[in-house]
Amino acid sequence: MVAQLTDTERQDALKALPDWDYDANRDAISRKFEFSDFAEAFAFMTRVAIHAEKADHHPEWFNVYNKVDITLTTHDAGTNGGLSRRDVDLAKTIESFL
Amino acid sequence: MVAQLTDTERQDALKALPDWDYDANRDAISRKFEFSDFAEAFAFMTRVAIHAEKADHHPEWFNVYNKVDITLTTHDAGTNGGLSRRDVDLAKTIESFL
Amino acid sequence: MVAQLTDTERQDALKALPDWDYDANRDAISRKFEFSDFAEAFAFMTRVAIHAEKADHHPEWFNVYNKVDITLTTHDAGTNGGLSRRDVDLAKTIESFL
Amino acid sequence: MVAQLTDTERQDALKALPDWDYDANRDAISRKFEFSDFAEAFAFMTRVAIHAEKADHHPEWFNVYNKVDITLTTHDAGTNGGLSRRDVDLAKTIESFL
Repeated sequence: MVAQLTDTERQDALKALPDWDYDANRDAISRKFEFSDFAEAFAFMTRVAIHAEKADHHPEWFNVYNKVDITLTTHDAGTNGGLSRRDVDLAKTIESFL
Repeated sequence: MVAQLTDTERQDALKALPDWDYDANRDAISRKFEFSDFAEAFAFMTRVAIHAEKADHHPEWFNVYNKVDITLTTHDAGTNGGLSRRDVDLAKTIESFL
Repeated sequence: MVAQLTDTERQDALKALPDWDYDANRDAISRKFEFSDFAEAFAFMTRVAIHAEKADHHPEWFNVYNKVDITLTTHDAGTNGGLSRRDVDLAKTIESFL
Repeated sequence: MVAQLTDTERQDALKALPDWDYDANRDAISRKFEFSDFAEAFAFMTRVAIHAEKADHHPEWFNVYNKVDITLTTHDAGTNGGLSRRDVDLAKTIESFL
């Protein structure tokens, strides 16, 4: 099992990821991305996909045309799932692609 | 504008796509796919993506790990969007990949 | 059959693509690309792949880790294949991704 | 540094990979793949790409349209590079996708 973030860790993480929204219900973070077209959106997804598999931590994501919505949470963090170090790391990796 | 399917065309299309669900509210079809792992799921998405762009008709899709949910409808079909020939063609192309 | 570029067209094309090398033997152009890592290189390839299929004109390309070598020529241009408008268009599209 | 295969290990590996060619000069293995079209070839490459990055071991590969040529060797195996356990593992993973 992966450790869920403590309250202080969560606050620090959200401060470091100002463009991500926090869903308290799911203890998850999400961000909407918009690209110039479908090909650019899907190429971005491919880059994220390769990193996600390497980190063994996968996004929940939705795409239509040039829009990509990414939600990150850790299914086996805590008792009901929630934000872990892995989500923060993946979010920061994704940010570095922009 | 793309022509929305007539009732008869819609019935024929749904009969030819027995594994797809019909959403009458949106006049859309959707199907859930499950693969052996993330890499297989994302490779499938890549194949669909290349065909979708070529047909200039893109799916609404959601992925998490080995699961892919695809919804097809045509945003500029009829007055409010709805099922068109393009959705049926893309669904059949996707079916041919399985 | 696709028209091979005339000498004047070829000269203009090569002038507009200063980072591409010309192989007179094959009447082909090529360029070497280097990225920060494999995932960035492969995401770039994915973007090119989607555009190439849409244009129905595909590159010859080689990849190892963060390096991508692309060669463009048109197999059915002229009698033995050679540079056509399609190669110039694809090269310019690729340039626009950098 | 990664250990280069011993002669016995190399013989066993090649026996287990009958569709791969051995290049004694480079101590490398390679195989040519052919798919129904470009999209299927590139989807296959995407699946291999995701696994390769996870294993931190990348192919040398060439693609044109529906053809993919893969060469595997380990640059830091032995003194001049050569076949290692990683190449055999990646080749077997690739075989499992066919």
